[in-house]
Amino acid sequence: MKINGIIAATFSALHADGSLNLELVPALVEKLIADGVKGVFICGTNGEGPNLTVEERMQVAEAYISAVRKRILVFVHVGHTSIAESKKLARHAAVAGADVISSVAGFYFKPSGTENLVDCMAEIATSAPGLPFYYYHIPALTGIQVDMIRFLELAEDRIPNLAGIKYTASTLHEYQACLNYREGKYDVLFGYDELLLPALAIGARGAIGSTYTFAAPLYVAIIKAFEEGAIEKARSLQLLANNMISCLPKYGPIPAQKAILALMGYELGPCRLPLAALAEAQKNEIKRFLESFNFFEKLKNCVYDVQ
Amino acid sequence: MKINGIIAATFSALHADGSLNLELVPALVEKLIADGVKGVFICGTNGEGPNLTVEERMQVAEAYISAVRKRILVFVHVGHTSIAESKKLARHAAVAGADVISSVAGFYFKPSGTENLVDCMAEIATSAPGLPFYYYHIPALTGIQVDMIRFLELAEDRIPNLAGIKYTASTLHEYQACLNYREGKYDVLFGYDELLLPALAIGARGAIGSTYTFAAPLYVAIIKAFEEGAIEKARSLQLLANNMISCLPKYGPIPAQKAILALMGYELGPCRLPLAALAEAQKNEIKRFLESFNFFEKLKNCVYDVQ
Amino acid sequence: MKINGIIAATFSALHADGSLNLELVPALVEKLIADGVKGVFICGTNGEGPNLTVEERMQVAEAYISAVRKRILVFVHVGHTSIAESKKLARHAAVAGADVISSVAGFYFKPSGTENLVDCMAEIATSAPGLPFYYYHIPALTGIQVDMIRFLELAEDRIPNLAGIKYTASTLHEYQACLNYREGKYDVLFGYDELLLPALAIGARGAIGSTYTFAAPLYVAIIKAFEEGAIEKARSLQLLANNMISCLPKYGPIPAQKAILALMGYELGPCRLPLAALAEAQKNEIKRFLESFNFFEKLKNCVYDVQ
Amino acid sequence: MKINGIIAATFSALHADGSLNLELVPALVEKLIADGVKGVFICGTNGEGPNLTVEERMQVAEAYISAVRKRILVFVHVGHTSIAESKKLARHAAVAGADVISSVAGFYFKPSGTENLVDCMAEIATSAPGLPFYYYHIPALTGIQVDMIRFLELAEDRIPNLAGIKYTASTLHEYQACLNYREGKYDVLFGYDELLLPALAIGARGAIGSTYTFAAPLYVAIIKAFEEGAIEKARSLQLLANNMISCLPKYGPIPAQKAILALMGYELGPCRLPLAALAEAQKNEIKRFLESFNFFEKLKNCVYDVQ
Repeated sequence: MKINGIIAATFSALHADGSLNLELVPALVEKLIADGVKGVFICGTNGEGPNLTVEERMQVAEAYISAVRKRILVFVHVGHTSIAESKKLARHAAVAGADVISSVAGFYFKPSGTENLVDCMAEIATSAPGLPFYYYHIPALTGIQVDMIRFLELAEDRIPNLAGIKYTASTLHEYQACLNYREGKYDVLFGYDELLLPALAIGARGAIGSTYTFAAPLYVAIIKAFEEGAIEKARSLQLLANNMISCLPKYGPIPAQKAILALMGYELGPCRLPLAALAEAQKNEIKRFLESFNFFEKLKNCVYDVQ
Repeated sequence: MKINGIIAATFSALHADGSLNLELVPALVEKLIADGVKGVFICGTNGEGPNLTVEERMQVAEAYISAVRKRILVFVHVGHTSIAESKKLARHAAVAGADVISSVAGFYFKPSGTENLVDCMAEIATSAPGLPFYYYHIPALTGIQVDMIRFLELAEDRIPNLAGIKYTASTLHEYQACLNYREGKYDVLFGYDELLLPALAIGARGAIGSTYTFAAPLYVAIIKAFEEGAIEKARSLQLLANNMISCLPKYGPIPAQKAILALMGYELGPCRLPLAALAEAQKNEIKRFLESFNFFEKLKNCVYDVQ
Repeated sequence: MKINGIIAATFSALHADGSLNLELVPALVEKLIADGVKGVFICGTNGEGPNLTVEERMQVAEAYISAVRKRILVFVHVGHTSIAESKKLARHAAVAGADVISSVAGFYFKPSGTENLVDCMAEIATSAPGLPFYYYHIPALTGIQVDMIRFLELAEDRIPNLAGIKYTASTLHEYQACLNYREGKYDVLFGYDELLLPALAIGARGAIGSTYTFAAPLYVAIIKAFEEGAIEKARSLQLLANNMISCLPKYGPIPAQKAILALMGYELGPCRLPLAALAEAQKNEIKRFLESFNFFEKLKNCVYDVQ
Repeated sequence: MKINGIIAATFSALHADGSLNLELVPALVEKLIADGVKGVFICGTNGEGPNLTVEERMQVAEAYISAVRKRILVFVHVGHTSIAESKKLARHAAVAGADVISSVAGFYFKPSGTENLVDCMAEIATSAPGLPFYYYHIPALTGIQVDMIRFLELAEDRIPNLAGIKYTASTLHEYQACLNYREGKYDVLFGYDELLLPALAIGARGAIGSTYTFAAPLYVAIIKAFEEGAIEKARSLQLLANNMISCLPKYGPIPAQKAILALMGYELGPCRLPLAALAEAQKNEIKRFLESFNFFEKLKNCVYDVQ
């Protein structure tokens, strides 16, 4: 399995009271397909998976699988502090018709090393043996810094359905080593939107990211420009993406991205605690900031550009 | 509510296959009551709460509540990455007859500051308004370093059932400040077993700890010696405790403590991943180490001593 | 060598332009002797050793040694990123008449482990073989977290003039283990002023601290109260000290302490960059804060109390 | 000032007893010039600046300046915990004929924020106003994580001789933002050898690195391949570089690189503590590892290739 293109790490859709609002999923899915994404990654960091109950995560998975109707891939994130809950989620994903499962490392009790991490991931992955499994490497959130090459060496024999890694870190030399492990045996999807162009330079073919949910055409244009050798254009588009991303941390990246989606006509509701709600004034600040460099207009031009 | 004495942060009891083995709970509870503990803290770090499913956590709570029969206090830890799951656990604890609830801060998405933390804890605490609530402060595991005095100032108005803090950190000056907040309004239970004597010196009255599950008489003797002004004896007993504790990290503290309990006749089974299983050779190493300074004999002497 | 009592980690005295102002040293030394300190620790963290040139550090050492005239002990801190510079400082200290040398671990290139740390400290210590040497353990500043018991085990044979450790960390269980290493072979001076009382409870006899430079009588009173079994009084004095200390971080601990000394009539001038200068308004804030709980008056009462 | 090409962050040359061995400098300089480097960066991390005395650092600077004879640029690193020592080094560099000065942030007392960092760097830079100044950003070693765009905004007015940044971090999006700050006003040299190709992709023109001291032709070939659009070749050369680099951490990067230089005929002696000496067996391991993928032969081919 090798992904060429981008996967949107999509959001959960909530009512104002914080309950699920799954009716919003189909419209978002149509937009993503129109925007050229090759799949959706659900209930991950961006999808607030850890904020949802196990039952809610299953409902979100079903809603996306049903809306997607096999037109693009559905990755279901099943990571949880309890491996028993992860296994429930993995089995459910298989039955419900997901295409891929993925899991972060444990984040309360942390794996004591690479072997222990592989032991944990093997339990989860093998509970849905018919689905490809991607390990979700995101050390900034989980604090797990194990060597990914060593992970591949150990996981190779232990996880028959290992497809690759969702690699969310800025250590691009390790990313390049993973891409080249056993002549490219595994699919290593890049997960750091701000660094898409540098990742392409060392061989990235597929990527998963949160801003791909609302700005996919911009990133599709970066890939196209890079492939055509238009490096200056690729740089300038990446800089545009990074300018947009630069405003997210101040407000909390997930609430801020939901606010941007709302500006584009996709109101997915608030986030759950501990993610904070944004005030109207904050949403307006984001709007003004993005308009100050014509972000939305430039994004639209990317759509025309890549068609 | 003010606890005088020690609370055992007890373990989960599992079959060899990792499933719950609740039949072991009553015997352990009788031992703890005989040892003089004032309560049990269940499904916390030591009880592997985050490794269990929500349903299993409810079963563990019921088993302890039923075995205890109101003779000592039952603290139920309800912390979870999903506040919705925490609220389920809190409501269940109230209905099932627990005496106290407690929760750690979120540990995937981390509270952005003290206010946000109080927002989160208020949602959980107020879902079981009839039970006292203790915030479980354990920055080494959660990474949440907020100022605990500021927490009390903000939580005071927001959490009517706030009883205090389970304070697991070595920053004893902050602990002392919490003890003295508004002339001792809150019950601040000390959670760092190695530092019980220094905590007593600055005014600790109650403590929660994992090694109290198998070595309660030793700590009861430390408190007695301190209160009687026998400071040299208290130091020597604390040093004995710390020698024992010094062997735990090497094997993983929770599996190692379960191994010690097994040596004392309470075989509670393995831990769940990512906590690793100990080999027989490792268990023997622990045994030999503890016997090298007559730990078990000295512990027995404490029992006679405090009676 | 065993210290009973407190050592003041004293400050550098500077002119407004940042140059040394050594004429201020004698008056400060007289105050410290009158306050009952057993020694001064110079050119450490508090004394801005790393901000001074090697020549300036030698001048500061000479000024203190000359002012002290052997009435109390002079500890000279010789830590530096360059061990060659440390050796110069150590040899100078010996010739100039210092009583003790001390050094932190390297803080640009960090020791790779305990053995490497002992190799470094042995080079420094043995360049002044006639002076007792204390390793200065301050992991929060240096990032060096090595096991201090292992350090003693390895250093014992390698550093003939090893006298002990200046232990600045809140891990009191390790501190207690060091105190008891080989039945108290080494002098382990406690360096965390806020935790003096808890440290006394587990056996501390000597301590080095920055706030002992201006509030020595308060800490002498804590020790006296503890030794007399007046534990409530000791707690209340420690709480007073901690209230005072609580205002320091906001302004930078060293500039803030120099401001407090100035309020007491000892104007030692500014600090050097990167330590920032305080505005008059900030100095006034500190004054008002300390007066809000009558700190200076209570400190004076301690003087009467311990005489 | 804008550098096109690579600068070698070169090593200190020592006798077996650790004293300077400056006679080795001219031969190394000739090799570097032959290899196509555009400059040398001396007394930085790699050159063990912080391990040397101030006098030794001046001698090293003089030796390189004299050997280089203005054929390439000489960058002198003047960072020190004491700004007073830094200023001495900066003034000496100017008088001795260096082309550029550079400094890390303070690393004992750490700057409290961007403004404070700029205050510190301004004091150093303006003490040699005739030389261009590069701030040396290396958060992994100094722990200083300030925003580099904010640094440029503040430093612009405060440091007239600011030429740019030596940027040693994997956060390439910030690196790209710095490159594009005010339409490329500053020269931002990339300092993470493993990530040269991804940095080129987003616009890097100049780079400073330690492995450029012995493997410059390999990196010159990467740049050439990238500029010619031979992206597969560039990737494969970067992978070759990264394989070589992958063996360094195990032995300590600086001693290991000195061992590689020795294998190539440039024996620069040991390092100073806390950097450890390598045993012969370790040096042989490095040799065998590099030979296992024909590193030296492939490096030679790069020489032919780029000529």
